[in-house]
Amino acid sequence: MTHTTSQSDSSWLAGEELDAARQRLPILYVDALPVRVDGQGVVTAVGLLLRVTGEGTITRALVSGRVLYHERVRSALLRHLEKDLGPLALPKVPLAPQPFTVAEYFPTPGVTPFHDPRQHAVSLAYVVPVEGDCAPQQDALELTWFTPEEARDQRLLAEMTGGQGALLRMGLAHVGV
Amino acid sequence: MTHTTSQSDSSWLAGEELDAARQRLPILYVDALPVRVDGQGVVTAVGLLLRVTGEGTITRALVSGRVLYHERVRSALLRHLEKDLGPLALPKVPLAPQPFTVAEYFPTPGVTPFHDPRQHAVSLAYVVPVEGDCAPQQDALELTWFTPEEARDQRLLAEMTGGQGALLRMGLAHVGV
Amino acid sequence: MTHTTSQSDSSWLAGEELDAARQRLPILYVDALPVRVDGQGVVTAVGLLLRVTGEGTITRALVSGRVLYHERVRSALLRHLEKDLGPLALPKVPLAPQPFTVAEYFPTPGVTPFHDPRQHAVSLAYVVPVEGDCAPQQDALELTWFTPEEARDQRLLAEMTGGQGALLRMGLAHVGV
Amino acid sequence: MTHTTSQSDSSWLAGEELDAARQRLPILYVDALPVRVDGQGVVTAVGLLLRVTGEGTITRALVSGRVLYHERVRSALLRHLEKDLGPLALPKVPLAPQPFTVAEYFPTPGVTPFHDPRQHAVSLAYVVPVEGDCAPQQDALELTWFTPEEARDQRLLAEMTGGQGALLRMGLAHVGV
Repeated sequence: MTHTTSQSDSSWLAGEELDAARQRLPILYVDALPVRVDGQGVVTAVGLLLRVTGEGTITRALVSGRVLYHERVRSALLRHLEKDLGPLALPKVPLAPQPFTVAEYFPTPGVTPFHDPRQHAVSLAYVVPVEGDCAPQQDALELTWFTPEEARDQRLLAEMTGGQGALLRMGLAHVGV
Repeated sequence: MTHTTSQSDSSWLAGEELDAARQRLPILYVDALPVRVDGQGVVTAVGLLLRVTGEGTITRALVSGRVLYHERVRSALLRHLEKDLGPLALPKVPLAPQPFTVAEYFPTPGVTPFHDPRQHAVSLAYVVPVEGDCAPQQDALELTWFTPEEARDQRLLAEMTGGQGALLRMGLAHVGV
Repeated sequence: MTHTTSQSDSSWLAGEELDAARQRLPILYVDALPVRVDGQGVVTAVGLLLRVTGEGTITRALVSGRVLYHERVRSALLRHLEKDLGPLALPKVPLAPQPFTVAEYFPTPGVTPFHDPRQHAVSLAYVVPVEGDCAPQQDALELTWFTPEEARDQRLLAEMTGGQGALLRMGLAHVGV
Repeated sequence: MTHTTSQSDSSWLAGEELDAARQRLPILYVDALPVRVDGQGVVTAVGLLLRVTGEGTITRALVSGRVLYHERVRSALLRHLEKDLGPLALPKVPLAPQPFTVAEYFPTPGVTPFHDPRQHAVSLAYVVPVEGDCAPQQDALELTWFTPEEARDQRLLAEMTGGQGALLRMGLAHVGV
């Protein structure tokens, strides 16, 4: 996965300073798995973004981004969900700060299932129901909903990079599907 | 806590058979802590029922009840929330089956923090946001909303029986307040 | 999965009474995924039992069994681990009662990923490190250790019944492998 | 809480650079609640460090520290436990990366229950059984074991700073005591 830095970050940390920090510190991220649920709370669909990477490859991705200085984890979750899914998505941020897992993206492949060539990112991962209309924004081309069965398909998982396919599987396992 | 059996149970298990089973098997329950949350998922209030026990004592209680034969845990949660809070409460049942804790109510006091003189009940406990209008039903006199600070008050906790005060504290700890 | 009843249950509940209860109530179970861990707590191997079912089929299985009347969940976990892995297995029962998931085995296939033709069993599932020597006991023919990669193999998962393959995958996802 | 930086950090990030990053980025921490458990996994005692802060005040504290660049969360946990409790403590790092909560220490008091005047620290919190002999090291004067009941005492909690009293209560709630 190539984690992207949105422009709104610039007021917090200039690009070159962030680049320096990325060589020295683990950077805190959140990963969100947007889902549709039925009236009993059963997950019926999982939303994946279609992105074009810097190298021009097309990948499927979770909603993901950095937690800023003096920003709460739940605010970062909301901000990235709104940034990627649009202002009408109505995400329901989890009540509890306990994530379903912690994904450790290492710059060196193979240390964990997660890899990010640019940095050591440690990401708190949550499953987030969205109830409104989603319209992909910015560098996301499209948001596609998959049934839990489709989302476990090997070909789909292969379109995800940096270990996000593993993270998707962990999220689905957590919600029992 | 004296767990109550609603009349709708009768089609599943006649009263005397259930009484016999209660002397022989742990009985599966759910406990729900109804909460109000703000737009960022922060718990702003906790709902407690005011009940009159069989002995005429007034107690504060969580939403609680048995899981029936061939009933899913999430359906039991919804059923008991609707039974106690009314049909317009709009509870959001958790996506994941993982409870925040498992409360083991023993007929013998002191084995665990939880006690139920009538039976050995094992209860899966969840925090459940409710978004609609709550109207206490059946044997609940009233539903009162407390701020998380008020809900930690020793006098309030003392009005709860069977260890539900401890369970309330565990639920609040889980959501980070 | 055909959950088995050990003889030691007989003092708690006579066979025919239990059979009657099984038609009327959800029965509380525990499922344990025995694992070996390295010094950093990373799961290096998963233990699966080889069992012969009543029909003579050979299956792979998790450690699984009923919670008895007046028995704590953690005591039930220990009892079933010792029954299946022998007295020298030295299992480390989890500190927290929170299971990684709750598996709902329905007598009707397809309601959940879990199925038990004999009963409606609701099982609290835990990953349990075992540090000692394991010697399969009673109706278990063998205990085999698999690496996490081997344990995700489709052929291995196909040898598990009642949805325990799904439960194994959920447990592995929970520990991040 | 005044999170301390050990000298071993210096090879990773020079002091002034870290100070600069601390004004710009959330810094990733781990908090560990060391516990003694009995043979059934029940927590029987909680270990708290006695520390002298830079201002000369004596406080009780959890084991806590920074996650370094290219360090796994579980390695950071082990490193800080060994640093504070000595090399013979034999901590059992949790198998699952899922923390019991995430403590967000803000430089501004009141945003969350957690406060750190020097930085915005986001800490993954775990309960960790230790089986060996503990000998406080470095800037810890003493390690004292308290029963879970003693650990909930208001006076003891008042000796903890930065919200670690709240974190201790959350950890105890998680393990069901």
